[in-house]
Amino acid sequence: MEKTRPILGITMGDPAGIGPEVAAKTLATKEIFDISKPLIIGDANVMNQAVQIASVNLKVRSVSKVTDAKFEYGTIDVFDLKNVDMDQLEHGKISAMAGNAAYEAVKEVIELAMKKQVYGTVTGPIHKESINLAGHHFSGHTEIYAHFTKSSDYAMLLVSESLRVIHVSTHVSLRQACDLVKKDRILKVIQLLDNACKQFGIESPKIGVAGLNPHASDGGLFGWEEEKEIIPAIEAAKAMAFDVEGPLPADILFPKAKGGCYDGCVAMYHDQGHIPFKFEGFIWDNEQGKMKTIKGVNITLGIPIVRVSVDHGTAFEIAGKGIANPDSLILAIKYAAKMVANRME
Amino acid sequence: MEKTRPILGITMGDPAGIGPEVAAKTLATKEIFDISKPLIIGDANVMNQAVQIASVNLKVRSVSKVTDAKFEYGTIDVFDLKNVDMDQLEHGKISAMAGNAAYEAVKEVIELAMKKQVYGTVTGPIHKESINLAGHHFSGHTEIYAHFTKSSDYAMLLVSESLRVIHVSTHVSLRQACDLVKKDRILKVIQLLDNACKQFGIESPKIGVAGLNPHASDGGLFGWEEEKEIIPAIEAAKAMAFDVEGPLPADILFPKAKGGCYDGCVAMYHDQGHIPFKFEGFIWDNEQGKMKTIKGVNITLGIPIVRVSVDHGTAFEIAGKGIANPDSLILAIKYAAKMVANRME
Repeated sequence: MEKTRPILGITMGDPAGIGPEVAAKTLATKEIFDISKPLIIGDANVMNQAVQIASVNLKVRSVSKVTDAKFEYGTIDVFDLKNVDMDQLEHGKISAMAGNAAYEAVKEVIELAMKKQVYGTVTGPIHKESINLAGHHFSGHTEIYAHFTKSSDYAMLLVSESLRVIHVSTHVSLRQACDLVKKDRILKVIQLLDNACKQFGIESPKIGVAGLNPHASDGGLFGWEEEKEIIPAIEAAKAMAFDVEGPLPADILFPKAKGGCYDGCVAMYHDQGHIPFKFEGFIWDNEQGKMKTIKGVNITLGIPIVRVSVDHGTAFEIAGKGIANPDSLILAIKYAAKMVANRME
Repeated sequence: MEKTRPILGITMGDPAGIGPEVAAKTLATKEIFDISKPLIIGDANVMNQAVQIASVNLKVRSVSKVTDAKFEYGTIDVFDLKNVDMDQLEHGKISAMAGNAAYEAVKEVIELAMKKQVYGTVTGPIHKESINLAGHHFSGHTEIYAHFTKSSDYAMLLVSESLRVIHVSTHVSLRQACDLVKKDRILKVIQLLDNACKQFGIESPKIGVAGLNPHASDGGLFGWEEEKEIIPAIEAAKAMAFDVEGPLPADILFPKAKGGCYDGCVAMYHDQGHIPFKFEGFIWDNEQGKMKTIKGVNITLGIPIVRVSVDHGTAFEIAGKGIANPDSLILAIKYAAKMVANRME
């Protein structure tokens, strides 16, 4: 393979959402072909419709194996799963058909990556209810990836303009998240974060670790997890020569990271990392009643393949209207290409 | 009193920190005298030294009662507690003397406000360890105010450029914060927030309420507090004609509020509200190794007097150097003046 132009498998996401439109707009971007060989995994009929919706001047080529794809700018190569009945498809609607199509694309791209037919994977937005309606009981992409790659020590990394934040836990209640603040897990995510930063080209990553409690417990006044779990994890990481600081109060860690003090941050639970990440990258348009900008990507670490995702949902309320913004998918592809290139080295 | 120029009691904070310097710089700002009659509560000798450190061309007048103050621009009126021995005072050091001086100023300003000799109070930064070393066992200003005003239903409101965030709980462990997510308390803070917004001049405040769990529990998948406590509180608030929405995922609520969708937000715990607030207002200077900008104020609601505070600490590492930034204190005074004026109406 060409290190500088790896084949990337890109799922189009739920066909009733903005995923296909965003994919069409993204593949109308010349730069994407300069840095990668993009292969859309999904349904060619849906992509044909998406080209219309997106008003982009592109052809769609249906392929049934990766070697048939040509990766030429001007044409969208679709690894065609032929799993959407266009007569039944309705934008903005939850359905088992759409959920199943989205799910099969994710399963396929994982298989292609495991077989090394694609070198990195990028995922469009899926709808959890549709997936579950189709009988696939996963809470999201990350869990599907973990299942099919048989991974247990995975973690979610969010990357925005100024932040890289890994999470000790994600989709669990806040009470359960407190229970998951454990020395071994924290040490593991520090290692994953350090490794990911290096894949992004940062030679000696400096990592800041958040406390769980307000003021990082203020010396034990509010909570004990800093003393019993977080500090021991940080000490262990230091002993392994990681450049790591903390625990810092979360409300201080993220402004410092934004200002350049840390290359990566460790968040103890979902919202602790997601709040600053989205506060930076999500710009609300109050007149339109929607986010006008969504910047940032979501990367699954601790699995054997590269997976980068947009960090927006299916946006059913604007699906089919041609107004969806492809910035997040473009950024996701750039990150995937960079990670693949650095893994090759 | 003049509604447009109320007497405000302003504590200078811990004499070993940046508080006195910041107060001197603030009172060198003409606008402060246009909107208020500022009275510093503290030690006149410390303020004389602070004028030197701040390099401002101001005189210091020591007064022992409020009626002796003249509130003329060019002179700092100090309600002189004469409680600092300048020979013992060392910048950047924890000490019982400094802690006691800071504590006595807070106690005094509360008494002056309760006696209506000052109409609003503004507090400079204190150091918790010094306060405790002096034998005053409080975890912060808010608790001192609650104690001396005999208040139990108080709450912390943070105000930045784009956010107003009230907290269901503050200085407790995250586990305890989960336990404090109770319908009655949430309803109470919605009322306090609505009332505060009106004091800021917002006629019909629109309030957004965060969930406790990630994705606001995603319909009960991760946690039960939304269903059992938060939604019932929101329903009760709606029944009382408050304009309130939620529970929203916290990572969506704050970008929406920043974009103008909500006048005020309810955070379920300390960091949930503090992270976006500080992420917006605290700008880290990585070369200097300090925050170069700290914008935003901290307001105690649910007490019988107006109290606004800077939202920075004593910053011992830069105390006495003349480089502290008065922006937060200036903003705090503006808020206090506005709240007093609106309370008068």
